[in-house]
Amino acid sequence: MNTTPYLEIKEEVYQALKENRPIVALESTIISHGMPYPQNVEVAKNVEETIRERGAVPATIAIIDGKMKVGLSKEELEFMATSKNILKASRMDLPVILAKGFNAATTVAATMIIAELAGIKVFVTGGIGGVHRNAQETFDISADLQELAKTNVAVISAGPKAILDLQLTKEYLETFGVPVIGYQTDELPCFFSRESGINVPYRVETPKEIASIMKTKWDLGLQGGIFIANPIPKEYSLDFEEIDKTIENAIEEAKRRKIKGKELTPFLLSKINELTKGESLKANIELVYNNAQLGAEIAKEFNILS
Amino acid sequence: MNTTPYLEIKEEVYQALKENRPIVALESTIISHGMPYPQNVEVAKNVEETIRERGAVPATIAIIDGKMKVGLSKEELEFMATSKNILKASRMDLPVILAKGFNAATTVAATMIIAELAGIKVFVTGGIGGVHRNAQETFDISADLQELAKTNVAVISAGPKAILDLQLTKEYLETFGVPVIGYQTDELPCFFSRESGINVPYRVETPKEIASIMKTKWDLGLQGGIFIANPIPKEYSLDFEEIDKTIENAIEEAKRRKIKGKELTPFLLSKINELTKGESLKANIELVYNNAQLGAEIAKEFNILS
Amino acid sequence: MNTTPYLEIKEEVYQALKENRPIVALESTIISHGMPYPQNVEVAKNVEETIRERGAVPATIAIIDGKMKVGLSKEELEFMATSKNILKASRMDLPVILAKGFNAATTVAATMIIAELAGIKVFVTGGIGGVHRNAQETFDISADLQELAKTNVAVISAGPKAILDLQLTKEYLETFGVPVIGYQTDELPCFFSRESGINVPYRVETPKEIASIMKTKWDLGLQGGIFIANPIPKEYSLDFEEIDKTIENAIEEAKRRKIKGKELTPFLLSKINELTKGESLKANIELVYNNAQLGAEIAKEFNILS
Ligand SMILES: [Mn+2]
Ligand SMILES: [Mn+2]
Ligand SMILES: [Mn+2]
Repeated sequence: MNTTPYLEIKEEVYQALKENRPIVALESTIISHGMPYPQNVEVAKNVEETIRERGAVPATIAIIDGKMKVGLSKEELEFMATSKNILKASRMDLPVILAKGFNAATTVAATMIIAELAGIKVFVTGGIGGVHRNAQETFDISADLQELAKTNVAVISAGPKAILDLQLTKEYLETFGVPVIGYQTDELPCFFSRESGINVPYRVETPKEIASIMKTKWDLGLQGGIFIANPIPKEYSLDFEEIDKTIENAIEEAKRRKIKGKELTPFLLSKINELTKGESLKANIELVYNNAQLGAEIAKEFNILS
Repeated sequence: MNTTPYLEIKEEVYQALKENRPIVALESTIISHGMPYPQNVEVAKNVEETIRERGAVPATIAIIDGKMKVGLSKEELEFMATSKNILKASRMDLPVILAKGFNAATTVAATMIIAELAGIKVFVTGGIGGVHRNAQETFDISADLQELAKTNVAVISAGPKAILDLQLTKEYLETFGVPVIGYQTDELPCFFSRESGINVPYRVETPKEIASIMKTKWDLGLQGGIFIANPIPKEYSLDFEEIDKTIENAIEEAKRRKIKGKELTPFLLSKINELTKGESLKANIELVYNNAQLGAEIAKEFNILS
Repeated sequence: MNTTPYLEIKEEVYQALKENRPIVALESTIISHGMPYPQNVEVAKNVEETIRERGAVPATIAIIDGKMKVGLSKEELEFMATSKNILKASRMDLPVILAKGFNAATTVAATMIIAELAGIKVFVTGGIGGVHRNAQETFDISADLQELAKTNVAVISAGPKAILDLQLTKEYLETFGVPVIGYQTDELPCFFSRESGINVPYRVETPKEIASIMKTKWDLGLQGGIFIANPIPKEYSLDFEEIDKTIENAIEEAKRRKIKGKELTPFLLSKINELTKGESLKANIELVYNNAQLGAEIAKEFNILS
């Protein structure tokens, strides 16, 4: 193993690593493929600021010219937000994209891998990938779930992306031994809404409890991540039944237009935004801020324990 | 990795480990969630005694006050058999249960993990978890199978639990590279009955052969367990067709009453016991004794080789 | 871990390992179960010769008398091609077959394991195993795919075996993070034909690019293999629609005759050969030669980088 030729850690992050200060990793798919310009770059900057205000160091992760960047400059953020030639990197893509010197936004899976390589244990995103609706037939299951099964990073999200099958996603995580923890909730939140009708296996009340679970898991040598589900704040939560219907309509349209693979998620998100007249984008932005706040608190508590 | 704060090994087991004597791990879900009181505590003691009589040391595994206990005192056995606040711990639950100081019985998956942490290579149970009937739709697949795919412990059971889909369980184990070995049988036994109509990939005749397969697997660095299927003795075996119909009825009732998740298996076992007028409980007890005898012999043979 | 008692490396291969020269591993299932005698032994020798001519050392892998042979003598090749008592070893079989001293041809999975144990990083085969048609119901998924997910060997093939479900195979590899690379093709080839209607995630033009992707993956510590899909040469490619119909007919007959498990693939291949009047066997032979040429080039390029 030799990551030196591939990994570039920004000075701010490097200093924090050296001084053992709390750090929060962030992904870049949300920037390049998850939101329109200029909201994407604005949100990316605000998320970083939120984390700094809470006393942790943000490390937005992306691949530029075949280098894994841990922490982006303003210019790099802008580049990721505006360039048309940004691929989307999951675990399977990393070796090709790095070997060929491409640019890519990192998914949850790839961000977890790079965070772990850099020594960062807390990662904030919007929603994780999971088991797609109708995966019984298609076998369409995001590599994010296998990453949670093997890479030692805690992932804070507002639940699996709403376009997924939540119950199947929960079963899959159970089979592969991934702890699923509801932050101040008994119900698995599903991105745009606080409720889903599906219980979380465990509810915790404080970032300190989460830090202690993280430490315990890795002290035991139990490989893999922890999935922390942090519901969207009440004031921005969309009605579950309504958004679910909207999603079903968007999925129908994707089917008719034969959109699949990596294009599916961005298409669905943008279609849902159109159908909700921008409400879903607003919810998406707010849940990310909310996750960033919790992530910073968890990073600080974990930092004390480790 | 630092297991010291979480692991408590009973003196009897500790001495056996130090002196490199044969040890057999036992799980506690059967005690807390698998049988009614007082049969549960009686069986637990008899199983331990059976193993001692055969010249090995029993190590019943459970989680008490957030500590992984390897070997239980009489008081602890009684506590696990009678207390109402015993959770059920699989791989995903361990970090939470330990961090929060809860009590929990350990499933096959969690017992394998703790046995390996303690350095024990042979583990006896009643039946393993597997792929549930209708998992094609529900994705309900026990974490026990993934544990067999990655944790280096030999598991002796009377087959997958009868409530499961045996053929799918066999396919899943094949995909994940787990050796399935029939002890003096060509057919995969299914807990209450010796037959199932499904072949085992390999048949062996002696504990010594099993020990040699274990040594070979781990000498090669092939991560994961070995699944040894030991049929219930003829005199206690229930008729396969009959018990299968009973199980289908119990599953139907569970569906009507919307019982699922961790409550499903205990509900089914108790319903089946009711429908068989206690015959299934008797079979369950006898197959555990039978497995304990084989487990002790395997532990002794493996001890000679290693 | 102690592989010494189980592993026997042929002098030619041993010298190449010592002198750090390029080596290409080959499997033996194609010899014992994939082709009739005497074509099997003839092809096996020609493949080895093709690799030598290109400046790499061939290492055909098989299990004889419970020893993992890396490199076979002429007598051993003949034995594997003619003996009636050759088992078929996948990951789950290895410990049993070695412990019991059996003879076995190695599947893609077992060959990858043994190649890695011997320190060989490039492996040439005809087609890999994958997700079987109708696996949504049967869960019949080859252990080859999990091996690609965890063992650090690059596998050059003409695509998944044509009898499989290609789309499901592609999804499964994506979930488990395996890079799938098309050599000079945008389309996933499917063994007998160059086209399948399914895109490959990445296309590369040269062995050097592949070597660089291999190096990058393993430099990053990303466990697992790389799947290089090398289409059958145009002049030997069968028509996709036609061969697909033939395969469906063969699968129907296998169902009627209740042929499954390890017998299924050899039955289908021989049935397809019968239905195509030998055209499929000819295609099979030519695609293996074609893969051997590419494998030798990749081994040489990787040798320069590492
Ligand atoms: Mn997908
Ligand atoms: Mn389950
Ligand atoms: Mn199969």
